[in-house]
Amino acid sequence: MKGMHWREVRAAGTDIVLGNTYHLMLRPGAERIAALGGLQKFTNWDGPMLTDSGGFQVMSLSDLRKVSEKAVTFRSHIDGAKVELSPERSIEVQRLLGSDVAMQMDECVRLPAGPGDIERAMLLSLRWAERSSRAFESAPPGCMLFGIVQGGDMPQLRRASARGLVDIGFHGYAIGGLAVGEPQSVMLAMVEEVEPILPQDRPRYLMGVGTPEDILEAVARGIDMFDCVMPTRNGRHGMAFTRFGQINLRNARHADDPRPLDPESLWPSARDYSRAYLHHLVKSGETLGAMLLSEINVAYYQRLMQDIRQAISEGNFASFYERTRADWTKGDVAPHYA
Amino acid sequence: MKGMHWREVRAAGTDIVLGNTYHLMLRPGAERIAALGGLQKFTNWDGPMLTDSGGFQVMSLSDLRKVSEKAVTFRSHIDGAKVELSPERSIEVQRLLGSDVAMQMDECVRLPAGPGDIERAMLLSLRWAERSSRAFESAPPGCMLFGIVQGGDMPQLRRASARGLVDIGFHGYAIGGLAVGEPQSVMLAMVEEVEPILPQDRPRYLMGVGTPEDILEAVARGIDMFDCVMPTRNGRHGMAFTRFGQINLRNARHADDPRPLDPESLWPSARDYSRAYLHHLVKSGETLGAMLLSEINVAYYQRLMQDIRQAISEGNFASFYERTRADWTKGDVAPHYA
Repeated sequence: MKGMHWREVRAAGTDIVLGNTYHLMLRPGAERIAALGGLQKFTNWDGPMLTDSGGFQVMSLSDLRKVSEKAVTFRSHIDGAKVELSPERSIEVQRLLGSDVAMQMDECVRLPAGPGDIERAMLLSLRWAERSSRAFESAPPGCMLFGIVQGGDMPQLRRASARGLVDIGFHGYAIGGLAVGEPQSVMLAMVEEVEPILPQDRPRYLMGVGTPEDILEAVARGIDMFDCVMPTRNGRHGMAFTRFGQINLRNARHADDPRPLDPESLWPSARDYSRAYLHHLVKSGETLGAMLLSEINVAYYQRLMQDIRQAISEGNFASFYERTRADWTKGDVAPHYA
Repeated sequence: MKGMHWREVRAAGTDIVLGNTYHLMLRPGAERIAALGGLQKFTNWDGPMLTDSGGFQVMSLSDLRKVSEKAVTFRSHIDGAKVELSPERSIEVQRLLGSDVAMQMDECVRLPAGPGDIERAMLLSLRWAERSSRAFESAPPGCMLFGIVQGGDMPQLRRASARGLVDIGFHGYAIGGLAVGEPQSVMLAMVEEVEPILPQDRPRYLMGVGTPEDILEAVARGIDMFDCVMPTRNGRHGMAFTRFGQINLRNARHADDPRPLDPESLWPSARDYSRAYLHHLVKSGETLGAMLLSEINVAYYQRLMQDIRQAISEGNFASFYERTRADWTKGDVAPHYA
């Protein structure tokens, strides 16, 4: 987690972290991590790890990639080395990393894309799902494999993908290929298409999502799990997530403001540091600004998820949803005039 | 402190921190910090603060500087604004920051320099010392002002500077204008010239120093206080300070090494993370690598100073000195072969 100590990741309420298969297989290498005892031992993270398949980053980061039935070949963005990643190798790499929750390899097309391209990638992803599932058969008990629904922004392809995956049978189901630039309404519509098909007793995971609002809306539509770089990436760019919505600490209105981001936050850094100080750190390009906003944002996201879980278990998610949206809409506190 | 949370600065054993007058007067501004309650409240640092005079950074960072009897004028390296810094304004700025230990403004010449230049700057610094002392007269009780010995690498000028400062009378005495590229032997020789002149009952502060070895040697010659960016700056460059000397984590020998930097360190991160992981973070340019090495290094420096203080108070500094140097000379543990 960029700019955060592992102890802060834990203290912020994090139970599970995601390891990036693409990055780790290129550097330091899956076999090296396995020799060092797996990703948890390597990083000293004392908790479960989910790993992605590597497929998404191959598409977004590497050059000269070529997708065939068998595998995707690409050049490493680090040293240009030619690498082949097949569904079987992806499972092998994830097992070398010591993954607790592995993902099938899929092909994710960028939207907008033509129906033919979307269908071809969805069908290939289904065949890769089958191969991933077979490759995972020898995994130790307790490890889980998730299938990934593809189908772009086309409802009938999304439904076909979900049905195909349920036929194969997975420990959980992810929805991939969204949060790639399409409007939120399209993303949520695709979730709505797929949700009734996915088994009620298996976790549903919306990959790469998203803003707090995206998350709240997706939970309202039956999603259980998310992953996103936004808390730390936006933190590095001077943005704080709070009960009052997103706050841009670069804004000059904060330069003389002695008030904290949120005096009622349960996370100390959101209470103990003034907006003026955070503004100064961000404007000066001090690493500490990114560090503080990253931990503040991760703590906010984890708190949001905790509150969502509690509201669901107490049967009052609907009122929680309304209250949370109302707070965001109310917006940040009025500017401070020194 | 770059790349460190304040809570880690404290946990690493830090009792006092240095605030940079030059940086802070330009951004966010001394009057702004004063309006926000001073530097301690601004940063949330719960302990004493020493501030430098700003003079050194004017010389090293700003453009178009012009030194006159009255003041130094320069252009801000941030926005090019023309700024004047006089001894009186330096004291005013340090008081606006809420400094507990302030420094007189001095002129620090870069070595090597000609005798004429060194003498002129030393004499100017003495006159500025006088003015700084007068400007400090209205400071609240408990605040301290240090004079700064100048005189380059010329023993007779160093002695004259020290005598002049003692005549004025300060709460403590700094030795400036060293650790600017001269050999360690020259630096220590200048300390030896000056030490007998400085009052025994006042702290002596060797500015901008240094490596652990510099510190040990300077303590052996009667110095009490130091400041240096080296623990964090070297940390950002992949270097760790340990009992075994300095270790370059970029070195490939660490790539497969599951051993921590020092299993006997009292600082958790020096025990809990493998060299392989630190190597990976440094090679990947991950902020966490800089963060971990910065805190490991600050903790090492603070531990060294604690051990020095304890050895002195127990009357066995000489044996501590020998043992510590022997450990450094022994060097790092043998490479690990996987």
